[in-house]
Amino acid sequence: MDYRLDYITKLFQKISKKRLETYVITRIWHILNDENIKIVPQQYVKREDGKYALTDLYLPQLGLHIEVNEDAHYLCDDKINQDLKRKKEVEINSKHEVIEIDCRGTLSELNSRINICIQIIIRKIEQQKQNNLFHPWETDLSFTVAYHKNKTVLDASENPCLRTVDDICELFEATVPKRGFLRKGGVLHPENNTLLLWWPSYGNNHFSNTISEDENEIVEFSNNEAKRSEHIIAVSAHPIKRATFFRDTDALGFTFYRFKGVYELNLERTSIQNGLIWKRIEKTLAI
Amino acid sequence: MDYRLDYITKLFQKISKKRLETYVITRIWHILNDENIKIVPQQYVKREDGKYALTDLYLPQLGLHIEVNEDAHYLCDDKINQDLKRKKEVEINSKHEVIEIDCRGTLSELNSRINICIQIIIRKIEQQKQNNLFHPWETDLSFTVAYHKNKTVLDASENPCLRTVDDICELFEATVPKRGFLRKGGVLHPENNTLLLWWPSYGNNHFSNTISEDENEIVEFSNNEAKRSEHIIAVSAHPIKRATFFRDTDALGFTFYRFKGVYELNLERTSIQNGLIWKRIEKTLAI
Repeated sequence: MDYRLDYITKLFQKISKKRLETYVITRIWHILNDENIKIVPQQYVKREDGKYALTDLYLPQLGLHIEVNEDAHYLCDDKINQDLKRKKEVEINSKHEVIEIDCRGTLSELNSRINICIQIIIRKIEQQKQNNLFHPWETDLSFTVAYHKNKTVLDASENPCLRTVDDICELFEATVPKRGFLRKGGVLHPENNTLLLWWPSYGNNHFSNTISEDENEIVEFSNNEAKRSEHIIAVSAHPIKRATFFRDTDALGFTFYRFKGVYELNLERTSIQNGLIWKRIEKTLAI
Repeated sequence: MDYRLDYITKLFQKISKKRLETYVITRIWHILNDENIKIVPQQYVKREDGKYALTDLYLPQLGLHIEVNEDAHYLCDDKINQDLKRKKEVEINSKHEVIEIDCRGTLSELNSRINICIQIIIRKIEQQKQNNLFHPWETDLSFTVAYHKNKTVLDASENPCLRTVDDICELFEATVPKRGFLRKGGVLHPENNTLLLWWPSYGNNHFSNTISEDENEIVEFSNNEAKRSEHIIAVSAHPIKRATFFRDTDALGFTFYRFKGVYELNLERTSIQNGLIWKRIEKTLAI
């Protein structure tokens, strides 16, 4: 199935247990009627004191969150103030705007409120387009090997991505490593033996890897205590740079390998306690 | 919650397991953007040889069915021909039109096909309005006692309805019968002791009642064999006319008592085998 259709229909299914949220989000999508705008359900946002919030809908291109407020939100002043505090924290921590949609009243009243929200979205899109800042939502096309070969360069600031390890290898004409229980996490670049094509995951049974918010640092951390030292010593002995495709699975189950740049081992900060610390040295890579 | 909002949000929830159907139906609703048009999921339609079909979406005011055809519909010629036969049977038996939406291809292609379908719907609404045949979808207002009191007459051709037995009684200023295991199925009209206000159900533990397609005949049939004769003999001995509010629960769980007219017992056709046979003698009733 076409990626965008697959994505949107899965999104509608994911939110279907909450019927007012489904009504509001399907209406925003259909009436906005702009296939270049991605919408994301249940977006994770940091709050204060290590707490976090999930907003009902997020438009990543616009930095805009939408909250669907059912009757319960207005039951008492305490609840209203609590939600207001939460909204402010989300806005401060994410530097994003939050729009709330009040679902009380009739169908006509709700439709009017959703329409106002859609008008705000349209204005934000127009502003971005006027300032040449608008990046349309990815299509199937932008995930293909041919698309990236044709561009001749990967640029992390464009958020380029592929959907499989096979595609990463094909892009560089590298040999695809065998599948299996312990599939290799990378292969050498076929024309540059000082560069590894690397596809780490945020986490799996073997590794807990993390990437910093600014994406300048990756921590590679083996979950296997017995093997951790051995792994760190082996990598540190002959560290080679890594062209990194970070594996990410989104809230709807779509997996992508996103190019983040070329990283170099920071030997000073690497330790058994910290894991392997990788620092970004390049944001682009010629193909 | 507002009836129409309650209804539509329940409808979206009911269809949520089928994600392409959800996409198509939510899009038709939102882009049509006409609160006066009712949509019904999974409409029962008779086919030939006692078989029946469920169409994905039905617009009762327009006599229009919409079928959402996923990939499986186009897998082989056999399946295509089978669906074509089914479509023709539905059209012949229901005297309605059936529009099919092909869900193959990209999001853009699907959106275009849905838009064509919406254009057909809009044209049908305009035609009905031009011919003064259009009846808007009911609102909460039209279920109130005050609304019907104000109209001073119930006319079955307008499909008038109330939502509870209490409202039926209040409309005629009759005493509400006590609730309980064997709540009475009707009360005498307070100003006319030759007329019963009756609210039969299609079926419950005690009775299997049916109404003919043209609504001119109701069969009242007790499920309790031991009591059936006794009941028929008692009613036949002193038959009084019945102002009938047929109880119906729709596919989304909404219950209504719809006024069908005034019915008189047909003694000749009534029997232990047939049950009590009621014939409509009036379509209207003054309040």
